[in-house]
Amino acid sequence: MRILGVDPGYALLGYGIVDSIANKYTLVECGVVATDKDMAMPDRLNLIFGKLTELIAEFRPEVAAVEELFWGTNQKTAIHVSEARGAAVVACARAGLHVYEYTPLQIKQALTGNGRAEKQQMQEVVRNILGLKEIIRPDDAADAAAAAICHGNSAAYIDRVGRAVARGR
Amino acid sequence: MRILGVDPGYALLGYGIVDSIANKYTLVECGVVATDKDMAMPDRLNLIFGKLTELIAEFRPEVAAVEELFWGTNQKTAIHVSEARGAAVVACARAGLHVYEYTPLQIKQALTGNGRAEKQQMQEVVRNILGLKEIIRPDDAADAAAAAICHGNSAAYIDRVGRAVARGR
Repeated sequence: MRILGVDPGYALLGYGIVDSIANKYTLVECGVVATDKDMAMPDRLNLIFGKLTELIAEFRPEVAAVEELFWGTNQKTAIHVSEARGAAVVACARAGLHVYEYTPLQIKQALTGNGRAEKQQMQEVVRNILGLKEIIRPDDAADAAAAAICHGNSAAYIDRVGRAVARGR
Repeated sequence: MRILGVDPGYALLGYGIVDSIANKYTLVECGVVATDKDMAMPDRLNLIFGKLTELIAEFRPEVAAVEELFWGTNQKTAIHVSEARGAAVVACARAGLHVYEYTPLQIKQALTGNGRAEKQQMQEVVRNILGLKEIIRPDDAADAAAAAICHGNSAAYIDRVGRAVARGR
């Protein structure tokens, strides 16, 4: 199963495409969609939608795992990140991907067993699971890969117990 | 000029398409995109994007005026409304429309001269400007038409003074 993980943001949106085969994970591609602060917000959202649409066409992931917003963020930031998240979710859905949503806590829990794991520990776990020599940079791309791995684990669990534990459709 | 006004929401998203010719406004179409609360959020966003894309293809507005979120909304609501707003803005931008953004205060100011105008007054002003017998219902559709008229006024002002007063691109 090829999974597109997304860490939403409007200045930097992280993506990580991961293959999950027999409980082994391989990194296919990762990076960030960067939008310039001088661009109008509609243009930034349009760019995010367009870049994700291109990535999906090129790498053909089967599902998407999109991180939910961390609660308690500054409201102005939360509004713009949520707009970017809406643009990203729609890009995935329009391309025919089923979109699953995970909170930061669920992702940390799935990868380390600890919903309060530190960023450094998460990066190291992602590096280890993907068999990489170096941690993924920038953080946004590593977080996106973590979301994809989280879905892989949940999906494996769904297969095993025959019922959905993941949210979304 | 044909203007698509949008009042973002995830349960009900209002739209109002208005023709603005020589400072006279005519209502072309208005209504709401309703999404069911039992649908997963990605499906709701996808539906919003799809319906707006269809409306744009059918009525061919030249620009979009999208209301910005009212500050101080409950955070959970703000996040979901912003996601819906992101989906709506992207639908407009993908269809080639220039997207302008107006705050509720700007819209009220443009239509009544009072940024704190009551909902009832706004509905009555919209009815009067559009030469309708009845006020537009539901509220969301009336608010969307108000955003379109607000842009018409701003655009007329842009034409007159030769510089942009409207935000956006």
